[in-house]
Amino acid sequence: MATLQDIGVSAGINILSAFVFFIIFAVLRLQPFNDRVYFSKWYLKGLRSSPARGGAFAQRFVNLDFRSYMKFLNWMPEALKMPEPELIDHAGLDSVVYLRIYWLGLKIFAPIAVLAWAVLVPVNWTNNTLEMAKHLRNVTSSDIDKLSVSNIPEYSVRFWTHIVMAYAFTIWTCYVLMKEYETIANMRLQFVASEARRPDQFTVLVRNVPPDADESVSELVEHFFLVNHPDNYLTHQVVCNANKLADLVKEKKKLQNWLDYYQLKYARNNTQRIVVKLGFLGLWGKKVDAIEHYIAEIDKISKEIGKEREEVVNDPKSIMPAAFVSFKTRWAAAVCAQTQQTRNPTQWLTEWAPEPRDVYWSNLAIPYVSLTVRRLIMHVAFFFLTFFFIIPIAFVQSLATIEGIEKAAPFLKVIVEDKFMKSVIQGFLPGIALKLFLAFLPSILMIMSKFEGFTSISSLERRSAFRYYIFNLVNVFLASVITGAAFEQLNSFLNQSPNQIPKTIGVAIPMKATFFITYIMVDGWAGVAGEILMLKPLIMFHLKNAFLVKTEKDREEAMDPGSIGFNTGEPRIQLYFLLGLVYAPVTPMLLPFILVFFALAYIVYRHQIINVYNQEYESAAAFWPDVHGRVIAALVISQLLLMGLLGTKHAALAAPFLIALPVLTIGFHHFCKGRYEPAFIRYPLQEAMMKDTLETAREPNLNLKGYLQNAYIHPVFKGDEDDDDIDDKLGKFEDEAIIVPTKRQSRRNTPAPSRISGESSPSLPFSGKLV
Amino acid sequence: MATLQDIGVSAGINILSAFVFFIIFAVLRLQPFNDRVYFSKWYLKGLRSSPARGGAFAQRFVNLDFRSYMKFLNWMPEALKMPEPELIDHAGLDSVVYLRIYWLGLKIFAPIAVLAWAVLVPVNWTNNTLEMAKHLRNVTSSDIDKLSVSNIPEYSVRFWTHIVMAYAFTIWTCYVLMKEYETIANMRLQFVASEARRPDQFTVLVRNVPPDADESVSELVEHFFLVNHPDNYLTHQVVCNANKLADLVKEKKKLQNWLDYYQLKYARNNTQRIVVKLGFLGLWGKKVDAIEHYIAEIDKISKEIGKEREEVVNDPKSIMPAAFVSFKTRWAAAVCAQTQQTRNPTQWLTEWAPEPRDVYWSNLAIPYVSLTVRRLIMHVAFFFLTFFFIIPIAFVQSLATIEGIEKAAPFLKVIVEDKFMKSVIQGFLPGIALKLFLAFLPSILMIMSKFEGFTSISSLERRSAFRYYIFNLVNVFLASVITGAAFEQLNSFLNQSPNQIPKTIGVAIPMKATFFITYIMVDGWAGVAGEILMLKPLIMFHLKNAFLVKTEKDREEAMDPGSIGFNTGEPRIQLYFLLGLVYAPVTPMLLPFILVFFALAYIVYRHQIINVYNQEYESAAAFWPDVHGRVIAALVISQLLLMGLLGTKHAALAAPFLIALPVLTIGFHHFCKGRYEPAFIRYPLQEAMMKDTLETAREPNLNLKGYLQNAYIHPVFKGDEDDDDIDDKLGKFEDEAIIVPTKRQSRRNTPAPSRISGESSPSLPFSGKLV
Repeated sequence: MATLQDIGVSAGINILSAFVFFIIFAVLRLQPFNDRVYFSKWYLKGLRSSPARGGAFAQRFVNLDFRSYMKFLNWMPEALKMPEPELIDHAGLDSVVYLRIYWLGLKIFAPIAVLAWAVLVPVNWTNNTLEMAKHLRNVTSSDIDKLSVSNIPEYSVRFWTHIVMAYAFTIWTCYVLMKEYETIANMRLQFVASEARRPDQFTVLVRNVPPDADESVSELVEHFFLVNHPDNYLTHQVVCNANKLADLVKEKKKLQNWLDYYQLKYARNNTQRIVVKLGFLGLWGKKVDAIEHYIAEIDKISKEIGKEREEVVNDPKSIMPAAFVSFKTRWAAAVCAQTQQTRNPTQWLTEWAPEPRDVYWSNLAIPYVSLTVRRLIMHVAFFFLTFFFIIPIAFVQSLATIEGIEKAAPFLKVIVEDKFMKSVIQGFLPGIALKLFLAFLPSILMIMSKFEGFTSISSLERRSAFRYYIFNLVNVFLASVITGAAFEQLNSFLNQSPNQIPKTIGVAIPMKATFFITYIMVDGWAGVAGEILMLKPLIMFHLKNAFLVKTEKDREEAMDPGSIGFNTGEPRIQLYFLLGLVYAPVTPMLLPFILVFFALAYIVYRHQIINVYNQEYESAAAFWPDVHGRVIAALVISQLLLMGLLGTKHAALAAPFLIALPVLTIGFHHFCKGRYEPAFIRYPLQEAMMKDTLETAREPNLNLKGYLQNAYIHPVFKGDEDDDDIDDKLGKFEDEAIIVPTKRQSRRNTPAPSRISGESSPSLPFSGKLV
Repeated sequence: MATLQDIGVSAGINILSAFVFFIIFAVLRLQPFNDRVYFSKWYLKGLRSSPARGGAFAQRFVNLDFRSYMKFLNWMPEALKMPEPELIDHAGLDSVVYLRIYWLGLKIFAPIAVLAWAVLVPVNWTNNTLEMAKHLRNVTSSDIDKLSVSNIPEYSVRFWTHIVMAYAFTIWTCYVLMKEYETIANMRLQFVASEARRPDQFTVLVRNVPPDADESVSELVEHFFLVNHPDNYLTHQVVCNANKLADLVKEKKKLQNWLDYYQLKYARNNTQRIVVKLGFLGLWGKKVDAIEHYIAEIDKISKEIGKEREEVVNDPKSIMPAAFVSFKTRWAAAVCAQTQQTRNPTQWLTEWAPEPRDVYWSNLAIPYVSLTVRRLIMHVAFFFLTFFFIIPIAFVQSLATIEGIEKAAPFLKVIVEDKFMKSVIQGFLPGIALKLFLAFLPSILMIMSKFEGFTSISSLERRSAFRYYIFNLVNVFLASVITGAAFEQLNSFLNQSPNQIPKTIGVAIPMKATFFITYIMVDGWAGVAGEILMLKPLIMFHLKNAFLVKTEKDREEAMDPGSIGFNTGEPRIQLYFLLGLVYAPVTPMLLPFILVFFALAYIVYRHQIINVYNQEYESAAAFWPDVHGRVIAALVISQLLLMGLLGTKHAALAAPFLIALPVLTIGFHHFCKGRYEPAFIRYPLQEAMMKDTLETAREPNLNLKGYLQNAYIHPVFKGDEDDDDIDDKLGKFEDEAIIVPTKRQSRRNTPAPSRISGESSPSLPFSGKLV
């Protein structure tokens, strides 16, 4: 058991390491050659240009102005300065609402912490149960336990304080949650209302267009909507299956990178040709001239791309039974997205089109039955992943012993038998399997969500976040409280009575307080402080800068600003909500640590959002119902555990009085769901009508069809206009041509042959970048 | 333990009693004076007129044609003759689909019974476990148990048969369920499509219209929809709070009945005035002349009605914040019903208007927050009702002993001390409290649903049916399997581990087979046969006929044809589905009894629907998703119980192999929900558009506004036109006047004074029936 001193030392270490991170960060960010890593958002917005141009040579890379180092914590007030409306403008609503999750934590836990310290701590402290236990039964206990509910004797009337406090905490949390839900629902609606014209406001995604023998998908869609939405239909865009093409383009980009790398190398050291081996990882195989090899490879793949592109455009089989249908007014789009089209509810499925950036293209063609099956499979798979992931890992761990390696690969015997290596392997290898798994877990969950068939990146991330939260709940929270792997817990829970489970966990809760305090400091304090260093993007940027970058554009691409990463970030915050709510009535000692986490994370992420992160899509805070629901879940869990704990303490009437709490909380949740959730799912007709009316008044001659014609083109085709250097002119011409829809249409069907033949010419090494 | 002989005797008795019922029925229905009871549907449709007119006096009341008695089971093939489309026309889709529930039972259980008898019975029979147990441990067992899974020894490989059969049963049930869901979804859509023009196709119920200081509700609604559905809005009808008026009208009708009764009595025996006492139940109080008294009372209440009516129409406070909004096309109504109107999802709530007959008027004005609270309260109340209803009843029972009565009412001592009365009280009274409660349970559940705030009678019935099902599941099925009151079960389940519960119940299942077989015969066979007698309506009809009926119209009102009674009937059928599915793999012996029930009930209810029942509303089979869901629930319960049973039998791999079944079944349920349920909730735009187009082509000059103007008037106001004898002319005039909307509007605001004064005149005794 840790004493207060131990906690103090641990806190000191973690605060110190956080400070060290901040100092390193302060030094690094002031160096001009890191500027693009720590201010990438501004570069991407075009509001900041490279400081590396002009000035003394040394000053281009190192900041020699020592005064700037003195104010090394300056970024903190700086980060708080930008007002919210400006921040929404700067980084989008998603990021701002994401920040409000931390803010919500502060709002919930600051008053709870004050109340708990003012009432519960004195009530707990002025007992001597633990002291007596020490004398009588030689049970040791820490000072922290003295502040917790453990210090109150059984049958005590003092438990009434805890019950009243549990009510107070619940009411306060619900009140804050409701206010916050209301605020965010309003923010979302205001954001949607005040936004500039966006293609997704007019567009509906139609899936599962039934096959028709006589008509192509495009004709079918047009006829269907002309008949069923006669006054409102404007235009549509069928979806092509360009997954293979996208893969080829990606592959080509990789080859191009290698070519650039070797060309740069050759340019610096002109004396000799560079030779590479073709085998695995370049370790063996035929030796060839690197530059020539890659030029040939790129040439080959360019031809393939050309062929594939032609196929995608011309082959009716590559047209997927899905389309983006645009309407003349927002009102009509809102109507179409919210209604059922035909008597078969698995055909002509309509939903709001996600933002063009947000579309997950590969999933648009999945038929309805397949979706149900996929969902079921993924539910089952996730169940096994959560409860039994430890089994294959234990198996790998058993292999990863000295004997296992010697058996599997006898030729490694010499290395393995070495004393130093032996100790490394024994100390390191068994753990690495678990660490690797946990590092890859978010990606695994993301793949699972993709398999499930969601059509937008934001919904993929939301589903992954939900699963990550469940995984954390079972494998971090529960596994820490009742020591044991998840499947052991599952087994013991199946064999325990339902009202025994909260007791088992509840009793263990106060004993784990010191563990979780340490966890909060390591993961929450030092971890968040470490986030600001951006170590991985920093290293990657400098590596790319050294080996690949030739032009300013390359340098821009070398930046990896990242994003808030909702799928991993939000479940992590939720763990702190859970800990705070569970421990508030039990061990109030923990609350200040939670508060520090929320405050620190708020500042750090606000800074990151302002200066670094580049959100890839905008879902207008569509994730808030999930956040709200999970805090409610944490609240209910905390109430059940408190009931269990007090039950074992023989707190006479505790259980009957507490049982109303989860019932009321769930009732509150239903109320909030009905009251606010529709704002995140549906688009009210009144709002749509208002915007439509305003727009018609302002821009009576708007060519909406031209505006929407190309909004939802697969990014592989869009790439044409964005990435081309040589074809810029053609691209511009096309951009203008958008206004005449027939022209564009014809181009999509018969791609200009001159471009393809141009690409296949080996005499133009840079033409490979055309695609 | 019952032997096969016992079952045989019991079956004989029940079959005999069913036959007796049928013979009594055959005799009764052939008597002309019962004609209105047993053919009420035809009378209500105007297709059959009283046989009591003309002919010999005796023949008017008694059928003397003996040949007709010979063919006393003739009604059975008769009932099966009418083809389904004609039946839909005759009785509505609700009734036909309700019949299909029984048909579904036959389709599911006939093949299952054949398979189970062909495979499971031989497998079970050819063991001697029970025989050996008899010898070794002196355990007695019946022949039925020999056919059940109990006869298979532990660790036997024969359990594989049961596992395979469980899969076969599940797959077959799911297949039939899916086909049926599809058929009924199509029937519903076809019904809706082929229907004549109905007001609810064009109308949307708008609730929670926000209060506005400047405009009345009516103006507000008009402006809102003119702005937000500019091309489609047609007209609207605000909802008045006429609950008090409706009560008064009801009260007046009761008084009128008494007046009629006394007038008839006086007319028959002209010699003396009839005198009544005014006190409780006419037992004491002031004596007055009956006819004069009732005429005066009716006069008083008529005045009150007039005042209240004026108030309702003129007082803006009696206008509720709800309205029925009608649109120009079905398409527009479908759009409005399926979309959200404003950013506040608790205001301007739109939903499909129920059929005018189906509207439950009193609940239209409940605000949103109140709805959430009411729902929560009712959930909690229902929980207590289900698990703890036995406690107050036990309390009442403890009072209803001899001593209790003597204490409460000493003056009854003389009667109670009588020996015969004593035995009656002791044998009868304790049970009567429970019986009374069970008899009133459907009404209690209906009141709960009304309190919850549903706006249509069909949804009230659906909710009551759900609750009745849960109540039956806990208090009939579970309480019979594991003997003990519900709250004792609840307690033991809370203290048992989750995987112990299916075992506890599963083990008890085979032992209760004989009990349930008897139950099926008593409740299912004889009970259903008794239903056809229509005892209560028969007695009531003859009582009314003797004391109240003066005109042909009165006689029509004296008929009480009843309806299918979804709220009690459907949960009862579901109990048979549950029994059949649970016992199919365990004791196949039970299946033939279930089959007989379904076949018998199908014929009986088909006859009743054709000849007697008068469905009060038409929801176009909106209840089918509930029926489907409950059969799925029964399937999952049966699978879990089988798992529990086989678990105790040490059937090695049974559990892991069976666990996939509930998972797959739930997956299947989700698939069906997504695939078919929308057909029962939403109205596809394509269908609406098709009907609109057809209608415009057929009747280009249709005055839709006139048609819809008065569709949704509170029945109290509607009564004016329907019931009046004297005012028929005025009523007709108004019916024509509907076409000119302004006229009608003015009438509603300023009711013709002449009618009210006419009602208050005591010189016209029949004018009381005007309202």
